[in-house]
Amino acid sequence: MKTILIVGIGSGNPEHLTMQAINALNRADVLFIPDKGADKADLAALRRDIVARYVTNRASRMVPYSVPRRDAANPDYGAGVDAWHAALAEIFRSLLAEVPDNGAGAFLVWGDPGLYDSTIRIVERLRADHAVEIIPGISAIQALTAAHGIALNRIGEPVHITTGRKLGAVTDDTIVMLDGQTAFLNADPNLDIFWGAYLGTPDEITVAGRLGDVRDKIVATRKAAREQHGWIMDTYLLRKRD
Amino acid sequence: MKTILIVGIGSGNPEHLTMQAINALNRADVLFIPDKGADKADLAALRRDIVARYVTNRASRMVPYSVPRRDAANPDYGAGVDAWHAALAEIFRSLLAEVPDNGAGAFLVWGDPGLYDSTIRIVERLRADHAVEIIPGISAIQALTAAHGIALNRIGEPVHITTGRKLGAVTDDTIVMLDGQTAFLNADPNLDIFWGAYLGTPDEITVAGRLGDVRDKIVATRKAAREQHGWIMDTYLLRKRD
Ligand SMILES: C[S@@+](CC[C@H](N)C(=O)[O-])C[C@H]1O[C@@H](n2cnc3c(N)ncnc32)[C@H](O)[C@@H]1O
Ligand SMILES: C[S@@+](CC[C@H](N)C(=O)[O-])C[C@H]1O[C@@H](n2cnc3c(N)ncnc32)[C@H](O)[C@@H]1O
Repeated sequence: MKTILIVGIGSGNPEHLTMQAINALNRADVLFIPDKGADKADLAALRRDIVARYVTNRASRMVPYSVPRRDAANPDYGAGVDAWHAALAEIFRSLLAEVPDNGAGAFLVWGDPGLYDSTIRIVERLRADHAVEIIPGISAIQALTAAHGIALNRIGEPVHITTGRKLGAVTDDTIVMLDGQTAFLNADPNLDIFWGAYLGTPDEITVAGRLGDVRDKIVATRKAAREQHGWIMDTYLLRKRD
Repeated sequence: MKTILIVGIGSGNPEHLTMQAINALNRADVLFIPDKGADKADLAALRRDIVARYVTNRASRMVPYSVPRRDAANPDYGAGVDAWHAALAEIFRSLLAEVPDNGAGAFLVWGDPGLYDSTIRIVERLRADHAVEIIPGISAIQALTAAHGIALNRIGEPVHITTGRKLGAVTDDTIVMLDGQTAFLNADPNLDIFWGAYLGTPDEITVAGRLGDVRDKIVATRKAAREQHGWIMDTYLLRKRD
């Protein structure tokens, strides 16, 4: 039996690493480093920086792997994701061949492995013949509220977490992730927005204010940053004014 | 100017501490340790354990303080909370007198400081004459999903976070915290529940299954554990079956 460690590495700051994550990385015989293509080279570099800083186990090695693209052209979204996960499960299975018997292999997962990430679901397909351990990590939501110096929820009130694609009318305080289409442009301009990009990294940018007042600034900032870096990751909270 | 460090310490496992949190605790001249009364002595002990393990700055000292009870008898909930926060802000202000000029004092906050915790809001009242830094921590939500080996969200789907008091009909996948009244007993028995108590600690308990099948077991487990420990902290996820 081999152990698969799914290790949350936080969302941009190497110091987001928990002691539990550092210990897990040091228990691993093999560290799997995804390579999502040139545009996200910064992210692969951050993973390597984390390993260089915190992995003291000299017997471990890094094994890079490339992540196939999901077939976005598949008209059936569910079937497309399913086929993509199946392909990744086969890649993971062959990566795990690099792990010695009774050893452990670690996947370094951005943020928290439970939040909008497919690693747990892919590894689900390998549970029959592997032990699996999940190590939580600091998510972009937590990096966002910490950067703005605010609490996520209002006193005793609920919070909604959604994606750009699913953002509808905002009643509860709402976190939006995975928003490639600046869905906030369709939201009520009287909402407050707390927006952040590259959170936790030296390039962190935050903007906050009444949506109607700051949305143009966010759009312009987002566009310029995206051109400069070649990629962007941003998250925001929308809430009604008190 | 003194700095107030609001440091998330994770939700029960000392290894939830991030490198950022450890570095922040070591930057502090004074560490403030709340004492919530005898029933939660375990939690005060965990805070002390964290300091003993990770604080190497011998110049720092621990200052305990007692947390007044909120006046639950106040018929106006908002006014009651407000008065309680004002009282705590005055306590914090006097605690900060223990911090040398240009020094830093750290509050060790359970889980993530942004999630159902009043420290940020109380410190908000002291922002005029203090610098404030927030360090995110692993929340009970992340400890819950990691313990169950599941993702928080379904693929691309939203998540709702609420309290026992505000739990209504479950449409989206829903996390319930702060539930003293076992609100799950009123939920649709055909939902799946992923329940956990003392998450991250050596006493961690988890139960999962169809709500109608496992709710009596959860009620009994919860009652017995609460009697044994004198207190309980539990969290759960409710979701419709696939
Ligand atoms: C595939 S999801 C992964 C989320 C991750 N598992 C987490 O816990 O944060 C990627 C989305 O997370 C958000 N995100 C992740 N890291 C971020 C960062 N450093 N700054 C801003 N947003 C970030 C963005 O909304 C991005 O579209
Ligand atoms: C006042 S809130 C604080 C939440 C904390 N800031 C966090 O990020 O998890 C306390 C609630 O968090 C949940 N909780 C905190 N720690 C927990 C643990 N170790 N196991 C289960 N639930 C926990 C329970 O729902 C509890 O009622």
